[in-house]
Amino acid sequence: MDAKFEVQLKIRKPVAEVFEAVVNPAKLTGYFLQTSSGPLAQGSTVTWKFAEVDQTYDVVVGQVVKDERIAFDWPSDAPGGGTTHVEMVFKVLDAHNTMVQIREGGWPETAAGSKASHGNAGGWMHMMCCLKAYLEYDVDLRAGGAF
Amino acid sequence: MDAKFEVQLKIRKPVAEVFEAVVNPAKLTGYFLQTSSGPLAQGSTVTWKFAEVDQTYDVVVGQVVKDERIAFDWPSDAPGGGTTHVEMVFKVLDAHNTMVQIREGGWPETAAGSKASHGNAGGWMHMMCCLKAYLEYDVDLRAGGAF
Repeated sequence: MDAKFEVQLKIRKPVAEVFEAVVNPAKLTGYFLQTSSGPLAQGSTVTWKFAEVDQTYDVVVGQVVKDERIAFDWPSDAPGGGTTHVEMVFKVLDAHNTMVQIREGGWPETAAGSKASHGNAGGWMHMMCCLKAYLEYDVDLRAGGAF
Repeated sequence: MDAKFEVQLKIRKPVAEVFEAVVNPAKLTGYFLQTSSGPLAQGSTVTWKFAEVDQTYDVVVGQVVKDERIAFDWPSDAPGGGTTHVEMVFKVLDAHNTMVQIREGGWPETAAGSKASHGNAGGWMHMMCCLKAYLEYDVDLRAGGAF
């Protein structure tokens, strides 16, 4: 079985606004992260921190194509799992609607890898729901802590 | 690898309000489903329909313990996958906060089973985010379609 997935969600905003809400740390910390060391820029390494956990995550940014695609590697939560690869794809549905698709893979094909990959499938859907609530309703769905 | 998962999300509402928003079809259709044929009552079979897909899903409800637990079986999206088993657990954090945990398992241990299980990990997190937005902010996060 493959420790990889794709999740997607429609955001009822223009692609430029959706993309900006992901790469700009001032926006990303408004609905998803506690802190981020900088923008998601091609070739950079950005440190992310979530409010609910003590550790930080170094995000090694590969390709960034404005309003189209972001690819990065980051640490796996599976013990000995190394890093996984994330691809975020932004698809224009029309001038007012954008489909965000997030794919991730690279976990070991073990029970721990399966647990981590399923956790991140939920985690990225959580992120996209928070992004949607933030852009469509100006609500921080992560306020008060996720768990 | 195991085709099973657990996802969880904190809802900042009392457990009775959270539980009611799941079992009561008038509420469940306000943030998650297009239609539901009835309440999630122990021993019943309830037909669910989502706005984005044509098919319906028969939910065979096993145990229901008010403000604590709901268990049901429902059809898998994996070809030949039969049904999977879902457990929803409601944990009181304090008088104003509830942790919702959703576990699902029972897919075949194939590539199709893995794809379906990761899809549902995202799907149940989507449901819990919509539940949270509905109860905490009176917002229907599914308005306009999810995909």
